[in-house]
Amino acid sequence: MGTIITLTTDFGLADAYAGVLKGVILRINPEVQIVDICHSIKPQNVREAAFVLSTAYQYFPTGTIHVVVVDPGVGTNRLPVILKTPAMYFVAPDNGVLSYILDSFSSQAVPSSERVTLGPDLKAYALISRDYWLKPVSNTFHGRDIFAPIAARLSLGMPASSLGQKIDTLSAFSIPHPEEKDGVIRGQVLHVDSFGNLITNIRSERLSGKGQSVTIVVGEHRVRGLVRTYAEGEGLMALAGSSGYLEVSLKNRDAANFLRAQAGDEIKVEFAG
Amino acid sequence: MGTIITLTTDFGLADAYAGVLKGVILRINPEVQIVDICHSIKPQNVREAAFVLSTAYQYFPTGTIHVVVVDPGVGTNRLPVILKTPAMYFVAPDNGVLSYILDSFSSQAVPSSERVTLGPDLKAYALISRDYWLKPVSNTFHGRDIFAPIAARLSLGMPASSLGQKIDTLSAFSIPHPEEKDGVIRGQVLHVDSFGNLITNIRSERLSGKGQSVTIVVGEHRVRGLVRTYAEGEGLMALAGSSGYLEVSLKNRDAANFLRAQAGDEIKVEFAG
Amino acid sequence: MGTIITLTTDFGLADAYAGVLKGVILRINPEVQIVDICHSIKPQNVREAAFVLSTAYQYFPTGTIHVVVVDPGVGTNRLPVILKTPAMYFVAPDNGVLSYILDSFSSQAVPSSERVTLGPDLKAYALISRDYWLKPVSNTFHGRDIFAPIAARLSLGMPASSLGQKIDTLSAFSIPHPEEKDGVIRGQVLHVDSFGNLITNIRSERLSGKGQSVTIVVGEHRVRGLVRTYAEGEGLMALAGSSGYLEVSLKNRDAANFLRAQAGDEIKVEFAG
Repeated sequence: MGTIITLTTDFGLADAYAGVLKGVILRINPEVQIVDICHSIKPQNVREAAFVLSTAYQYFPTGTIHVVVVDPGVGTNRLPVILKTPAMYFVAPDNGVLSYILDSFSSQAVPSSERVTLGPDLKAYALISRDYWLKPVSNTFHGRDIFAPIAARLSLGMPASSLGQKIDTLSAFSIPHPEEKDGVIRGQVLHVDSFGNLITNIRSERLSGKGQSVTIVVGEHRVRGLVRTYAEGEGLMALAGSSGYLEVSLKNRDAANFLRAQAGDEIKVEFAG
Repeated sequence: MGTIITLTTDFGLADAYAGVLKGVILRINPEVQIVDICHSIKPQNVREAAFVLSTAYQYFPTGTIHVVVVDPGVGTNRLPVILKTPAMYFVAPDNGVLSYILDSFSSQAVPSSERVTLGPDLKAYALISRDYWLKPVSNTFHGRDIFAPIAARLSLGMPASSLGQKIDTLSAFSIPHPEEKDGVIRGQVLHVDSFGNLITNIRSERLSGKGQSVTIVVGEHRVRGLVRTYAEGEGLMALAGSSGYLEVSLKNRDAANFLRAQAGDEIKVEFAG
Repeated sequence: MGTIITLTTDFGLADAYAGVLKGVILRINPEVQIVDICHSIKPQNVREAAFVLSTAYQYFPTGTIHVVVVDPGVGTNRLPVILKTPAMYFVAPDNGVLSYILDSFSSQAVPSSERVTLGPDLKAYALISRDYWLKPVSNTFHGRDIFAPIAARLSLGMPASSLGQKIDTLSAFSIPHPEEKDGVIRGQVLHVDSFGNLITNIRSERLSGKGQSVTIVVGEHRVRGLVRTYAEGEGLMALAGSSGYLEVSLKNRDAANFLRAQAGDEIKVEFAG
């Protein structure tokens, strides 16, 4: 039985919004354990939420229910949904925030701006019945009125099929994958973390064993070779980050700020000889 | 038995103060579930704390104990108190931070800057016995030394009457209620949330069904009609917020910043013919 | 059985790092209660983390496991360790972050920049066996890969001696203690809290009963006498803080900002006649 619910939102911490979700959940299931993944997603930034969730969800126990509320279309015709993977549940608006999850279960790259047909391991349910929502339902706070009560009921063991209606596709944006040509990998920054590290979409094992023969190019800056740890580097450095991706970091400082870099910026890797 | 304790404070998140409260509580009742409502109330801002609490408390289960520590008078003769409503407990300094709770249980508007005599549904207790406080008690951190241990003992089932001495009045500030005259409602901004939305004291059902015939006036700016959702609006918009109050919002941006608006500012609603 | 794990990190709240620690812990021990002490330690600021931890740990129940991840040397030869005091466990890098704990158990001042030999009340274990770590272990996120799983196993009742190898010394920096000479105490600011209060290393009982005859000197500013509460003071004030240390505060404002003061700055106390 899923007895952990995680929360990923853009509510910030200056209001009671995240606390309200917890109250709603605990009123339905007082025994569930609620864990904050992040409430500081930049407002309405669906792509950032999708990335942050993707770095965290797999570390939770089987049966965990992940609630994501970054929902610029709240109250419109975008559907609230449940996605069920073999190990976990996701309760979220159908706005692309689950793109990384869908990508990780897909044998081919997710096409841009399209609906993805779910593979055999995934099931999705559109939350269209109001039976298990708060009443009245607002048009501006579905986290409280729909996502939280649905997650709480899942945590009580109610089957997803009784909470929503099975659907075959979900919205997704295309996850940028790096391209390699003529000895150069062109990737991009997926995320800037709170230390200012640039996390790229280039798998670090792609560079392992290349030593000093590899050069990482960020804007005007060139970094020669990879270091193994933050402490080992001097100034700007490149290393294998904790999620398995190439990371660019600045010794004891904020690399993104120094480089004026942001998510979406190009990162190149050049292999000498 | 109340087994949830919530925390609303101005401690911020850069120190261990909130963590210390949790330690003190768990040392007395290791089984209780502690939920953060908000620790980012602006320092000493009792009115903001009162509002934030008022948007959240009713979503928690019956028996929940809400601890509020925004306490500029800590160590002075303002009393620490327990307020018991039919469904919940509040543990807080008697400095007006419970004004919205008192207002919601009152048949008439709370008079300005006065002590409110409690109605039949409410009971209050002054915490004047040191028996259940931490020893020694500091003059600067009653959250740790008084409010947390008292809340923990309530959560163990100790009756409020054994923790404090019954009193008949509590401090309150006057909750501003909108005034209507000559087809114009004059209300005010109660709160700016972390998205920059202006939350007013004007009930949104007051405007429902008026369509485009209604105009919301904020400073120099006029907004014609209400939208139903944030996504539907363009630029500056007005809509029914999630707590039932008229809200002014700016499409994907911070309305308060754009309007240079803050809590206390006047909002007018004009009804055309 | 230790059933509470606390977290003190410099991860910030804009990423999922703290949430990931919780996932890893709950996957190993779904019953443990996890409490945040602070995730907003300034990046890589081991001294700040050491101080913040020192203000909080003793308020938790016996058996609590405190995890500290402020770890600029992650992936280098600094060891991950367990420190066992009579009442608690600490799981942290051996980089000085436990200095205040060691100081409080030491009969003499901890010497500067040295390894401290543990007294009879303390036991420490170097985490050198990979058996209980996540696999693979990254070089950049030992919070997730080492500290969290080790803390979770401690919380299940595994003895520290089976998780690590006993060692006799730990790294520590010297805790600055005030000096007194010719009627003047020279101390320093240990910490600026989120209200902007300056917390010093001068025990406030040293000043008690001195009334107006005592003057606190911060840079160019002189504060005469101590007040009992924040409310009582006007402008700049000095008072006994909640941890037993002399504190300098500015009425309803940020003293550190006003004084341009920071941790490490000198604070003098002069006793008149």
